Amino acid sequence: MPSPQLAVIGGGQLARMMQQAAIGLGIHIRLLAEAPDVSAAQVIPDHLVGDHTDLDTLRSVVADVPVVTFDHEHVPPEHLRTLEAEGHACRPGPHALLYAQDKGDMRARLGSLGVPCPRHAAISSPEDLDTFGYPAVLKTTRGGYDGKGVWVVRSAADADEAFATGRALLAEELVDFRRELSALVARSPSGEVRAYPVVESRQAGGVCAEVVAPAPDLDPRLDAEARAIAERIASELDVTGILAVELFETADGRLLVNELAMRPHNTGHWSIDGADTSQFENHLRAVLDLPLGSTAARAPWTVMVNILGGAVEDLQAQRAVVLADAPGVKVHLYGKPVKSGRKVGHVTAYGHDLDDVLARARHAAALFTDGVSP
Amino acid sequence: MPSPQLAVIGGGQLARMMQQAAIGLGIHIRLLAEAPDVSAAQVIPDHLVGDHTDLDTLRSVVADVPVVTFDHEHVPPEHLRTLEAEGHACRPGPHALLYAQDKGDMRARLGSLGVPCPRHAAISSPEDLDTFGYPAVLKTTRGGYDGKGVWVVRSAADADEAFATGRALLAEELVDFRRELSALVARSPSGEVRAYPVVESRQAGGVCAEVVAPAPDLDPRLDAEARAIAERIASELDVTGILAVELFETADGRLLVNELAMRPHNTGHWSIDGADTSQFENHLRAVLDLPLGSTAARAPWTVMVNILGGAVEDLQAQRAVVLADAPGVKVHLYGKPVKSGRKVGHVTAYGHDLDDVLARARHAAALFTDGVSP
Repeated sequence: MPSPQLAVIGGGQLARMMQQAAIGLGIHIRLLAEAPDVSAAQVIPDHLVGDHTDLDTLRSVVADVPVVTFDHEHVPPEHLRTLEAEGHACRPGPHALLYAQDKGDMRARLGSLGVPCPRHAAISSPEDLDTFGYPAVLKTTRGGYDGKGVWVVRSAADADEAFATGRALLAEELVDFRRELSALVARSPSGEVRAYPVVESRQAGGVCAEVVAPAPDLDPRLDAEARAIAERIASELDVTGILAVELFETADGRLLVNELAMRPHNTGHWSIDGADTSQFENHLRAVLDLPLGSTAARAPWTVMVNILGGAVEDLQAQRAVVLADAPGVKVHLYGKPVKSGRKVGHVTAYGHDLDDVLARARHAAALFTDGVSP
Repeated sequence: MPSPQLAVIGGGQLARMMQQAAIGLGIHIRLLAEAPDVSAAQVIPDHLVGDHTDLDTLRSVVADVPVVTFDHEHVPPEHLRTLEAEGHACRPGPHALLYAQDKGDMRARLGSLGVPCPRHAAISSPEDLDTFGYPAVLKTTRGGYDGKGVWVVRSAADADEAFATGRALLAEELVDFRRELSALVARSPSGEVRAYPVVESRQAGGVCAEVVAPAPDLDPRLDAEARAIAERIASELDVTGILAVELFETADGRLLVNELAMRPHNTGHWSIDGADTSQFENHLRAVLDLPLGSTAARAPWTVMVNILGGAVEDLQAQRAVVLADAPGVKVHLYGKPVKSGRKVGHVTAYGHDLDDVLARARHAAALFTDGVSP
């Protein structure tokens, strides 16, 4: 067996899709999985099961592995600093991950770089919030995702639940946005950066529902600005691997940074079937300091639609229905039990006609979620 | 852990590449590997190590698995018939595999179907060979591959080594061919058939060296005939999964069937990066009787070049050189130790200009084999 070149902490679908890319490149992955049967543990033979917040567990996983990367951003930074001190390269490193883990630190740092962000303020009391003004978006600075830990507050009363968490809070202006964009870049430790085409991300209930690559009718000036913002953040924060910068395109034609993620991201899943090099392959290449691959799109339009857990309980059985219906749609199932609203897979379609591509992808995803067309 | 849906017998690179496709489709594979560290065992957690010629080993692998498929054609047919009798679907089945395992039976069957083949005769003595005439190609009816078990004989003396094997032999005319083509089809038990574009396969020393998809300047009549031959053989022989039909395009513009393979085939590796649905995904879909995916090419030209073991011993280290040199070339390493002439990986390039695509793919493969450009 080849010796492991890369440890991946976290056994979700991102690690699972990294393995698809690793097989091609001949990269041996060692995985730390949360449980024996999680998504990535099903497809990575060399895995341990344990708790990613336990330092000794992390040490045993990375013992003979030079480089460590992540399926999520929840490993305690102090553990990462210890692993680094013990000779392992954490990519991204704790100095960079901090800005994906803490929205307060992220806003402060982006502000100091002059990167455009929504107006924001740290909130420690209802009085702070009154001073900030309404409406506002209130967020826990740590631990939120997919709409969790986020509240739109139009009056003091709307903020009770947020304050009840007892956690550090950040208020941001409620941006009047035309749409959400995402700019993905891969960056290697030696400084090579490659940007993917800027995509449009469409949310439903705070969760990414579908992604259109490239973002339709994007002003070339904003396209260039979005890539430049992502490249600048990746370089200034010394990110290694994939950086996803989620952006608002405002009603008055500006870009504002919404969120950062330092790992392969839902808004980049289209690249598996739609780009020369998938975000997963480029993440592996970046964290191993291998030269990066072409990020060019392979088709004029690629659309990714998430499969959210719904009325269909047996995705395996439903797969035959979807494949029969759509011979050109690519199906990605994550090996997860269906729960309502949970991301259990995605589908991708591509082609020359955006309306056709959208319709085919949405139809396939709806067959997996609801069992019927939208 | 999801229960296994498919058992794969044999742990070579074909099973390894099936796993890449299985991850996307959410198919759980149970593998029988020849040794703990073979190519596919590195990437399929649910594997047993054992001998594919031992019936009890086969039984333990397939115990709770409804469908069985293969990385190679070397499982004894009587064992497959036993597994079938015990309720497992072998795909392809022993009744079809016979014609990939025994060239004498294959020639007889294709002859009875009226499929064009080289002139041929069973040879059991030097006198038989004299009667057949020279020059001839002498083959063992079983067990040959990649030029092994094949002799070009121009006189009785050239046949000594072949007769010394003591094995059943077949003589075939030495075909005056312009080039070799390959027609791949996927066929499911329910009878759905999809043909891939016909490709040109270029050999070196009896081993497939490179494949160009589609075959350049192929007469549309021959293109249609090649597909029809492959579809007809797949249906008549009741093949399930991928069938590869290797063909001679003769100097006088005819097609003759050279060899059959009933599994994903080296001449179909281009489809991973070059077709809507790879041969590995369509093999899985076919053997599980799922609807088949589009076999259309994604680019005007796709070229696959094998990486043969050569002067470069450390493929992992050389990978960085290749990726730096060719950001648009796709690298596939099989996790195998380098031995001279052994297939240890392949590279794929695609694009609009065939000369450019060929040059990029050959250059990348040469960097892996010789460390320098061709």
